Amino acid sequence: MIARVEATPAPESRSWWGWGTIGKALPDAECAALGALVPGAATEPLPVPDLRALELPKVRVRPPAPLAPLLSDSPPDRAGHTYGKAYRDIVRALHGDLTPAPDQVAFPRTEQDIADILDWAAGAGVAVVPYGAGSSVAGGVEYRGDRHRGVVSLDLSRLDRVLEIDHVSRAARIQAGALGPHLEAQLRPHGLTLRHFPQSFEFSTLGGWLATRAGGHYATLHTHIDDLVESLRVVTPVGVSESLRVPGSGAGPSPDRLFLGSEGTLGVISEAWLRLQDRPCYKASASVLFDSFPAAIDAVRAIAQSGLNPANCRLLDPGEAALAGVAQGGESVLVLGVESAYAPVGERLAELVTLARDHGGTPSVSSSSPAAAGGDAEAGAGTDTAADAWRSAFLRMPYLRDGLARMSVISETFETACTWDRAGELYEAVRGRLGAVARRLTGAEAIVNCRFTHLYPDGPAPYFTVIAPGRRGAEVEMWDEIKNESMEILGDLGATVTHHHAVGRDHRPGYDRQRPEPFALALRATKQALDPAGILNPGVLIDTGADA
Amino acid sequence: MIARVEATPAPESRSWWGWGTIGKALPDAECAALGALVPGAATEPLPVPDLRALELPKVRVRPPAPLAPLLSDSPPDRAGHTYGKAYRDIVRALHGDLTPAPDQVAFPRTEQDIADILDWAAGAGVAVVPYGAGSSVAGGVEYRGDRHRGVVSLDLSRLDRVLEIDHVSRAARIQAGALGPHLEAQLRPHGLTLRHFPQSFEFSTLGGWLATRAGGHYATLHTHIDDLVESLRVVTPVGVSESLRVPGSGAGPSPDRLFLGSEGTLGVISEAWLRLQDRPCYKASASVLFDSFPAAIDAVRAIAQSGLNPANCRLLDPGEAALAGVAQGGESVLVLGVESAYAPVGERLAELVTLARDHGGTPSVSSSSPAAAGGDAEAGAGTDTAADAWRSAFLRMPYLRDGLARMSVISETFETACTWDRAGELYEAVRGRLGAVARRLTGAEAIVNCRFTHLYPDGPAPYFTVIAPGRRGAEVEMWDEIKNESMEILGDLGATVTHHHAVGRDHRPGYDRQRPEPFALALRATKQALDPAGILNPGVLIDTGADA
Repeated sequence: MIARVEATPAPESRSWWGWGTIGKALPDAECAALGALVPGAATEPLPVPDLRALELPKVRVRPPAPLAPLLSDSPPDRAGHTYGKAYRDIVRALHGDLTPAPDQVAFPRTEQDIADILDWAAGAGVAVVPYGAGSSVAGGVEYRGDRHRGVVSLDLSRLDRVLEIDHVSRAARIQAGALGPHLEAQLRPHGLTLRHFPQSFEFSTLGGWLATRAGGHYATLHTHIDDLVESLRVVTPVGVSESLRVPGSGAGPSPDRLFLGSEGTLGVISEAWLRLQDRPCYKASASVLFDSFPAAIDAVRAIAQSGLNPANCRLLDPGEAALAGVAQGGESVLVLGVESAYAPVGERLAELVTLARDHGGTPSVSSSSPAAAGGDAEAGAGTDTAADAWRSAFLRMPYLRDGLARMSVISETFETACTWDRAGELYEAVRGRLGAVARRLTGAEAIVNCRFTHLYPDGPAPYFTVIAPGRRGAEVEMWDEIKNESMEILGDLGATVTHHHAVGRDHRPGYDRQRPEPFALALRATKQALDPAGILNPGVLIDTGADA
Repeated sequence: MIARVEATPAPESRSWWGWGTIGKALPDAECAALGALVPGAATEPLPVPDLRALELPKVRVRPPAPLAPLLSDSPPDRAGHTYGKAYRDIVRALHGDLTPAPDQVAFPRTEQDIADILDWAAGAGVAVVPYGAGSSVAGGVEYRGDRHRGVVSLDLSRLDRVLEIDHVSRAARIQAGALGPHLEAQLRPHGLTLRHFPQSFEFSTLGGWLATRAGGHYATLHTHIDDLVESLRVVTPVGVSESLRVPGSGAGPSPDRLFLGSEGTLGVISEAWLRLQDRPCYKASASVLFDSFPAAIDAVRAIAQSGLNPANCRLLDPGEAALAGVAQGGESVLVLGVESAYAPVGERLAELVTLARDHGGTPSVSSSSPAAAGGDAEAGAGTDTAADAWRSAFLRMPYLRDGLARMSVISETFETACTWDRAGELYEAVRGRLGAVARRLTGAEAIVNCRFTHLYPDGPAPYFTVIAPGRRGAEVEMWDEIKNESMEILGDLGATVTHHHAVGRDHRPGYDRQRPEPFALALRATKQALDPAGILNPGVLIDTGADA
């Protein structure tokens, strides 16, 4: 079947093959310039395929008439819902491979629509892949099985409203399909904010954050969306689960914690009560340079164990600092940020900087100010130069990654968490072992950088970037070999296979290794109880009888 | 069968019928004096039965020879493991009713012992009730079914060691049977502390805290033991579950959160890695009086939403303040405490007191000091008079409760959590509706007091005390009627049936009402997968095929 796409999409339209919006993708010349920085990269960018010329698999299933208005099998809808946004997804799309495209894309407008679609799918043996905004970097939205009669991508984007606000308790009931900016825009007139700002903020949804236990704005304390949840509504194939809306409870195992991280395998999260905060009006940020990365690790450990709980505490190793353009002399850079809705924060920042200095750091720029009227704290914008530079680089990174992908450069990240006693060893092991694998595969020196994104009193969450020249056409298998080695390293050192990117399908080897077997039994039994037909996101997290 | 008990137990021995140690139980004269304060109370205390004269049910099952050294069917062991420490447990024991006594009490010394006992029990159709130190106030350790061939109480007290300490990550691997003081004593030489101080601290174990999601020292932030857990080892009938020891993870639903709150129904927690803290050396406390309880609620809400996160923030309503002896003029009292291992805390306390004053409070005594050398922060001892008075009363309360029970006075507590928008209404409803029920039952005015024990940005955890004269011999059924009404009120107002006392068997009506049905299906499926013979703590949390 040949896709027909008539209109030229607007620059603000979502890219079907890459990150974010079409207008922000790197032009060919910028891709080439970027590629020139990587020895061994291709010299010409892979062209972005014309969707009109691509072949999509034949549509195998069609909905019954009453549901038809909710579903689409248009080529752009199918192509745009084929993959997430992992490097291997981008590359496959660039090579024009849309083999795993869903047969249908559903756009429910109500919770009842979701239930109706699940009913139909369960009866028809059709797999349903819940889809927020498709920013998964773990193969979370791509069907890979062959035991279903067809596949529906269930796009929640039309359920995007803030339904209710409880000002006294500072909480809101919000539909799962709301994108980050749309959600915050609805809260802003009330002076409230969720303050959950993953890197994917613009292109991910509340439901996606909840289903994948997304990591957010805060480097310490409330690092995951989990901590902001009061209650969940989940449409399962056997009925709606709604947990009691309370600030805390000890009544049995937490029902919410079963669905948080269930990645669409047990039900479709339709809405949630979330804890909100007053918008911060005092913010301060600073950066600190370290000549030694081990010393920097000691410094952030002291900070993580100090109870000072900075909102931002991001440590960049020398390579990452150079890549982000915040230090070029081989230093590691610690970016600190504190904020409050109630009182000036300069003193707390000073205490943090002192702690960093006590561990060998050299404070760079530091500043403190009430937020500008109408200013926006999203993603921790501060007034410190390195912090601002970092933020800009941070938001641009996925577009650069896509540009590198077009130059057949392997460019991907993975993240983890481990206790402090293993942090230094993990850093060395990843750089050493991954460097060796990349060298063997590519014949070139790979860039293996690291930053710590979130911190706990008992350990950091290290986030690694790997950049190496790939061979055009072999990028995916080369990356997969590097990725498998990374999962081996994490497993060997007792680090988690993912701190906040979810398991999806790509992390299954590492997840299957780290997950206790009795818990796997529990999860399979739960899956069987809630999704007896085995239609929900098959192959993610677990295999069950129906889709093993 | 007549129990034979020869030796007179020492004062520091655990009471088989009441709270804590024998030596701290109120003498008859004090019981009588206490009863005289409650119009309508009995004039003579119920005698404490002589264990030697009590009838225990016939022992129905005996272990195979290899396990025999681990089990005891001695009358004191069986009597001491018959009940928890709820009011209704104390009263039944005082009336000499030991009907639900276990047939055997097992004292495993190793994890393998636990597995062996579970294997035998599963094969023999014997129920196993995990037992930490028996302080359950929710019927959590009392078998009430009739579908098993016998009952074993599985006492973990011999697994009581700190096995390993990771100083860098500030964490320890600790066996589940360690009592609070013994656990802290093993950490103290390392300058570390778990800082989990439930009221039951002396008489409860790590495993019990974990299995019931116990509430601890901190009034804000890390209120439940859940937040201190790095990983768990759980012996289930189908194998040992050991979760990865990491500071944070987003790899699927949290395995630990399935076992936290599972109350012995899915497995026996044998050990855990816990996050520790440096011992605080700066502490300060203050108390603030309020003429109006609604104003006091507003004040603690402002504090809970301020991000100042006091370690202690306990609000006593006028009745509770009078009962604890910290205010006699009808005022509500807010007890504040802050602490740090790193820096003076006086300023933070001052900010908190200012917030309270801004909401109509009158600061009483306030003081700040480095902790005395060798001093101990357990249960938040400070230097403020009201705070100290409160702490003494707090630890003595269960003994007073037992004294009142001996005077046939109904004296019991229950606790909950709700969002702020319902807090005032809940307070009034509980006082009004419970007062009416107690009046109807007893013909007298009941005392219904309230304190807020833990606080969240989105709501408080109110803790209620009920005191009313009972009729000797009818105390349990009278209390059960009050308790049922309390669960009705909580359900009507959307408050949780328990914030940190667990569900056990006593809270089943309220829990069954609040638990989402799909989650109940998941829990039953999990139970079936991990405990196929249905032997583990039957009737707690859920009914399953084998024990419904």
